[in-house]
Amino acid sequence: MASTGTLRVLGVDPGLTRCGVGVVDVARNRSASLVHVGVVRTDPSMPIEQRLAAIAAGLRAVLDEHRPDVVAVERVFAQNNRSTVMGTAQASGIALLLAGERGLPAATHTPSEVKAAVTGYGSADKLQVQTMVARVLRLDELPQPADAADALALALCHAWRGGPTASAGGAGSATLTPAQRAWADAERARVTRR
Amino acid sequence: MASTGTLRVLGVDPGLTRCGVGVVDVARNRSASLVHVGVVRTDPSMPIEQRLAAIAAGLRAVLDEHRPDVVAVERVFAQNNRSTVMGTAQASGIALLLAGERGLPAATHTPSEVKAAVTGYGSADKLQVQTMVARVLRLDELPQPADAADALALALCHAWRGGPTASAGGAGSATLTPAQRAWADAERARVTRR
Repeated sequence: MASTGTLRVLGVDPGLTRCGVGVVDVARNRSASLVHVGVVRTDPSMPIEQRLAAIAAGLRAVLDEHRPDVVAVERVFAQNNRSTVMGTAQASGIALLLAGERGLPAATHTPSEVKAAVTGYGSADKLQVQTMVARVLRLDELPQPADAADALALALCHAWRGGPTASAGGAGSATLTPAQRAWADAERARVTRR
Repeated sequence: MASTGTLRVLGVDPGLTRCGVGVVDVARNRSASLVHVGVVRTDPSMPIEQRLAAIAAGLRAVLDEHRPDVVAVERVFAQNNRSTVMGTAQASGIALLLAGERGLPAATHTPSEVKAAVTGYGSADKLQVQTMVARVLRLDELPQPADAADALALALCHAWRGGPTASAGGAGSATLTPAQRAWADAERARVTRR
């Protein structure tokens, strides 16, 4: 659990072969620190049901160890008609399921929302995202591989955009944790002051 | 668990709002009987993570009560570019995950494979599928709603096609249960005799 006043976000860049996971703590002043980063990998020669079970086990281990307040998952589009898109959608469903089973709010963000939040530019390339994530989190090296950097960027995007936004149906303030309510209040106050 | 010599199949017609589930026992002579049929429903106004958790809970209840030998799930295509396709893919991922977590083999079949297996015609309409499912399982009424009939048709399709076929990667005979190995042997013998 994050300390009072900070929001701990698990970002998940879903994928069957490489599923990026990143956990960050974000303070009310928007400063952020790295808690965990990694990649859950599965063997493409394994049956799909075993790959999804391995991804769930990997995500559960991160949830158990780092106890995030919220889970942010990259939104997958059907238009993105690569052969991997269904596996990516299934992996994203696993991440959302695990959040739901723990009573954690979840949110999805599009790749361009994430890039815009982190670099200020919705069409930023992978190196720009990795560079900004490293700068924000004061890392000595660029987070590797790109899936891990994307998971951290997702987590930062979620915290900076404020409040959860469910990808289907409305997640009202009733689903906010105390930390998130505090955050949402702070966000509203900040906007009002402008 | 099914009795010796029969294969118990859970068919899942994945969906967020209505997820069809059907369990059938299929004997070596291909005769089939109904074990369970139902639909797991979730409220579209709920957050996605809670809907997926509700689907998982519903599927777990069926798995616990009826203990199938194998899980068959309708294959979802990205080309099917409806707004619901990502939710459908996520629900299918949950069904496959639950199979994997229990060490059950899983398989996916396309809608046209299912229609062809049950009606002999890959472009059969919903009423034709419902009618054939009712006839095969000796039901007094057509299974309702269509999602439930589709789940039963999937389960029948899987048993009749013989052996699991993983949707990604190869599920070898090592993943077969004893009942399925017996079934696969019988299938091979049957083909050889032709």
